[in-house]
Amino acid sequence: MTDLARQINFLLEIDKSKQVFRQTYLADGSRKENDAEHSWHLAIMAFLLADYANTPIDVLKTVKMLLIHDLIEIDAGDTYAYDAEGNASKAARENAAADRIFSILPESQAHSFRALWDEFEAGTSSEACFARALDRIQPLLLNDASGGKSWKEHNVRTSQVLARNAQTGTGSSRLWEYCCNLIEKNTALGHLEDDRAPENSL
Amino acid sequence: MTDLARQINFLLEIDKSKQVFRQTYLADGSRKENDAEHSWHLAIMAFLLADYANTPIDVLKTVKMLLIHDLIEIDAGDTYAYDAEGNASKAARENAAADRIFSILPESQAHSFRALWDEFEAGTSSEACFARALDRIQPLLLNDASGGKSWKEHNVRTSQVLARNAQTGTGSSRLWEYCCNLIEKNTALGHLEDDRAPENSL
Repeated sequence: MTDLARQINFLLEIDKSKQVFRQTYLADGSRKENDAEHSWHLAIMAFLLADYANTPIDVLKTVKMLLIHDLIEIDAGDTYAYDAEGNASKAARENAAADRIFSILPESQAHSFRALWDEFEAGTSSEACFARALDRIQPLLLNDASGGKSWKEHNVRTSQVLARNAQTGTGSSRLWEYCCNLIEKNTALGHLEDDRAPENSL
Repeated sequence: MTDLARQINFLLEIDKSKQVFRQTYLADGSRKENDAEHSWHLAIMAFLLADYANTPIDVLKTVKMLLIHDLIEIDAGDTYAYDAEGNASKAARENAAADRIFSILPESQAHSFRALWDEFEAGTSSEACFARALDRIQPLLLNDASGGKSWKEHNVRTSQVLARNAQTGTGSSRLWEYCCNLIEKNTALGHLEDDRAPENSL
């Protein structure tokens, strides 16, 4: 099979990302968003907000990482951030998915795509750190815009959102400051259940 | 208003791209795709297939261009490639949309996003030329995968697809060669109506 035939097969395989639905609603609350839409939104955030990264980033690398970071969910499914059981088996399911999906590509690209995904998962490089911050921030923005629709459906607590975002400030202090205000506002509105002791309030 | 507040407003405004539907079906034919999904797919194609560009491209610039090229359809709507009447008023509708949507951003980004979109529309730079080729090729791939579903619904003729793709080979000879085979195959299968005189067959 030619390299181009493998690349086209990959492009048709990843079309399935358009049918992997997340728990987050669109800004207007009309329906849940899917992985392709989410990844598109994040990729635009990467170059729109790059100046807010705590350490300088290679924007192209960050954009690539975000465009492909959720492809493994074609096999592994979307694991809701606040689903403890699903998160216990997440790594094994996602690694198997990465093995299958990236190996559709010609060998050198299979390797570079897998390396990008591994780097995103490790979360230690400047690019991965910023990319992971954006991946946490985008659902906050959509939840805020939709009146906390997904949070309310899942009875999400303020402490869970704070724990989920423990590393967001490492990617961008400025964006994390913005998010803290959103979390506080949505807690005050009752969109998040305030389970913090008074001294732990933001 | 701070720059960040304007950027967040822009991110929430462009969320509407997830609800602008195109005429092309997903690869499995289950439903039509929307602009956000389409743009995500194209951005991945840009770095996956960059080596096939006829002239070297700045990959980041091409990816940015593709991620934002259809934002104007939030106001202007999707104009089907083979809708003559819609295409007559397309430029005016899209320019007005670009004026409104990009001006949500802080001034310097409003300018750079608008410049990227104008460059895509002009189609003359290496990046715009390759980006426009991908924008033509992706629906060919999805139409082929879905058994020509959208072509058959609209009674599209082979000559229309060839005219629509008149510049695709300028962006990438190799990808255009691949597409010619797809067009020929779908014509033979009756997914496209063969209206070419015998001497004009590929």
